[in-house]
Amino acid sequence: MGLQQVSLNLNVRGLGKSATLAINERVAELKASGKEIYSFGLGQSPFPVPNCVVKALQKHAHEKDYLPVQGLPELCEAVADFHRREDGVNIQAENVMIGPGSKELMFLLQLAFYGDILIPAPCWVSYIPQAQIIGRKVTLIETSYENRWTLSPQALEEQCAAENDQDKPRLLILNYPSNPYGDGNSVEELMKIAEIARKYNIIVLSDEIYGQTNHQGKHVSIARFYPEGTIISAGLSKWCGAGGWRLGTFSFPANLKWLLNALVVVASETYTSVSAPIQYASIAAFQESEEITNYLRHSRRILDALGQWIVKQLTQANIRIHPVEGAFYIFPDFENYRAKLANLGISDNVDLCERILEETGVAALPGYAFGRPKNELNIRMAYVNFDGDKALKVSEQISWDQSLDEAFLEQNCPMVTTGIQKLIQWLEAL
Amino acid sequence: MGLQQVSLNLNVRGLGKSATLAINERVAELKASGKEIYSFGLGQSPFPVPNCVVKALQKHAHEKDYLPVQGLPELCEAVADFHRREDGVNIQAENVMIGPGSKELMFLLQLAFYGDILIPAPCWVSYIPQAQIIGRKVTLIETSYENRWTLSPQALEEQCAAENDQDKPRLLILNYPSNPYGDGNSVEELMKIAEIARKYNIIVLSDEIYGQTNHQGKHVSIARFYPEGTIISAGLSKWCGAGGWRLGTFSFPANLKWLLNALVVVASETYTSVSAPIQYASIAAFQESEEITNYLRHSRRILDALGQWIVKQLTQANIRIHPVEGAFYIFPDFENYRAKLANLGISDNVDLCERILEETGVAALPGYAFGRPKNELNIRMAYVNFDGDKALKVSEQISWDQSLDEAFLEQNCPMVTTGIQKLIQWLEAL
Repeated sequence: MGLQQVSLNLNVRGLGKSATLAINERVAELKASGKEIYSFGLGQSPFPVPNCVVKALQKHAHEKDYLPVQGLPELCEAVADFHRREDGVNIQAENVMIGPGSKELMFLLQLAFYGDILIPAPCWVSYIPQAQIIGRKVTLIETSYENRWTLSPQALEEQCAAENDQDKPRLLILNYPSNPYGDGNSVEELMKIAEIARKYNIIVLSDEIYGQTNHQGKHVSIARFYPEGTIISAGLSKWCGAGGWRLGTFSFPANLKWLLNALVVVASETYTSVSAPIQYASIAAFQESEEITNYLRHSRRILDALGQWIVKQLTQANIRIHPVEGAFYIFPDFENYRAKLANLGISDNVDLCERILEETGVAALPGYAFGRPKNELNIRMAYVNFDGDKALKVSEQISWDQSLDEAFLEQNCPMVTTGIQKLIQWLEAL
Repeated sequence: MGLQQVSLNLNVRGLGKSATLAINERVAELKASGKEIYSFGLGQSPFPVPNCVVKALQKHAHEKDYLPVQGLPELCEAVADFHRREDGVNIQAENVMIGPGSKELMFLLQLAFYGDILIPAPCWVSYIPQAQIIGRKVTLIETSYENRWTLSPQALEEQCAAENDQDKPRLLILNYPSNPYGDGNSVEELMKIAEIARKYNIIVLSDEIYGQTNHQGKHVSIARFYPEGTIISAGLSKWCGAGGWRLGTFSFPANLKWLLNALVVVASETYTSVSAPIQYASIAAFQESEEITNYLRHSRRILDALGQWIVKQLTQANIRIHPVEGAFYIFPDFENYRAKLANLGISDNVDLCERILEETGVAALPGYAFGRPKNELNIRMAYVNFDGDKALKVSEQISWDQSLDEAFLEQNCPMVTTGIQKLIQWLEAL
């Protein structure tokens, strides 16, 4: 028999690399073959790690000790203070947990928690495979273009009421501003969702990794309305340009300490603790400072201008899309072009992405990768393919009463603006 | 019902923090209460991260990109080259995987692999809880003091032959130099184990995290005799003083690529990739350099002198112990004191550790935490409670033809030498 592939966990078998990685490799191949590619695939912040945070890493490069599993106490304090200050929620340092990316913490949560996982779709690519690896049941809650792809409180209520088990342990994963659609529930909706969660004792994993990228700096956490049942997931990856550093945070309410403790035990048998120099350095990111405030203001201004410009272009081209309020994603829907696309033999979002890539060089991801049915015509585009360092420096030279105009975008984000134009030209030529 | 502790995975429920962490917290409490404590608990390298590696982290502090899941290619190349150079095994960069600690990689392996886990006991504290969290069956293979606690090839053969399933997928975890006993199988034994592993198609996870701490620099990997079925587990934590950095490596044979690929998929849905600055910096640790060579020579000389001195003292006091060949652990057995200990009401290793701590201030871990029966009288002691930076500097002033004498040890490792003396005095006074 030999050492063949006979002994793999069935939950892992056949699971592919994440869609985000796949598109990246595809893009690399096409670029290598000499094709001009407009990459809207991987959602990585275009901005550099702020200088004060890089300097802090240099200062703490010698730190060698294993840190406490739950996290460096000073960092937990900085994270708790950050959430109190920025989100107006009462988080205590003793209830903060640091992980090597919030994705790892979500995996530990799905592993430690024994219950159903409720996810409104479209959703981020990794929630469902994580549940699959662990063997958990996922219930996708339907959303619609008409409802801005957000979770309708009524749909949540109906889902819970329809199940003949009022006490079933449930974990609801909410992500806002959302990957893939850059938007989220209104405050009124969050309040209604909080009420339903309270009624059914649902634990809410509130994935707010894009919270600080809210273009107006006006992110509102559901933890304000459901503090006792909300775990806030956050980290450095998106607003601080440090995706590759791998530092995520979970902030628990005091009465979910039993769940935090279970995660700490599993962490102690897996990653042990997050890299010590990285934890020491990250304190500077969460503490209030003029440099961080300035960095956030300018990065938000750039993302806001670019997002608004893109939505305007696509809307004018009769592509269905909603305004974006945060993150750096759009989730356009080509339903209005269904007949014309059908003439080309395109009837689902996987084929649609493939053909757009082949014929325009625009690389995006199909709605299917985000839990939408294949036969819909939506795709996710990350508008991050520009030099964030340069864009920040130019933005800093432009006064606050001026907005960043089309010329700024064409000059500083040319691959994004050209890619959008190529896509529109392709559609209009159908 | 509320958000109570009703919804925890049974595999996680009741699992305590690791014994190593528990002793650390206990030590901290006792120290805070003013008690003089000789800490032989946590096994962390006493030496600093080499200067060239710290400098490399400072240089790469700005690196922000998500790196490939499997690892930074230049680092994988450095690791493969390291194993080829140091261990004489033919590892290719494309078969190296980087993780946030080898513990995390072992967890992914146990999760992805579907088969029985064979572990000779005593063994490191985390293998068994990892299997428990995932729900895998662990078969402990008996060892004995007489056989130096190492795996007897015959016991492995008997275990496999006794099971009525020649084709059962099995993973054997071997750890040498060993935590908890600082020794390992002889080369002849490794060759025999390799033969049996080949016969039964066993995959060997060869945990060589202490390989470079072999006091004579003469570590031999079983991969030399069973290259097609051995995964070498290694990393920076032990020989490079960088436990808190969290960087571990797995090196696969080419024909276990299917298993490597499965681990990469699970990694892509959990930790994503190891911290970018840490990966860039680690290249300097794996590359050959005069600084690293010198660092290793001196740290080995210190650990060798200290280990030999400790073994001599304990042997003279009629405590059963074997010579140590690597790592920084001893696993003494107090069987010769069983009658006297019984007079104090001590009849197992858990009580033994507790009483030693209370009455001498020496903090060690019971054999029970390492998979030995409670009623044996063995404990694990890590001899790392000294200022490694200072000890290295002093060693560098002493020429190679001189050995490091008792005066060196008493001057540079006083908490270790005094702790050992306290333990012996306590025993002799029984």
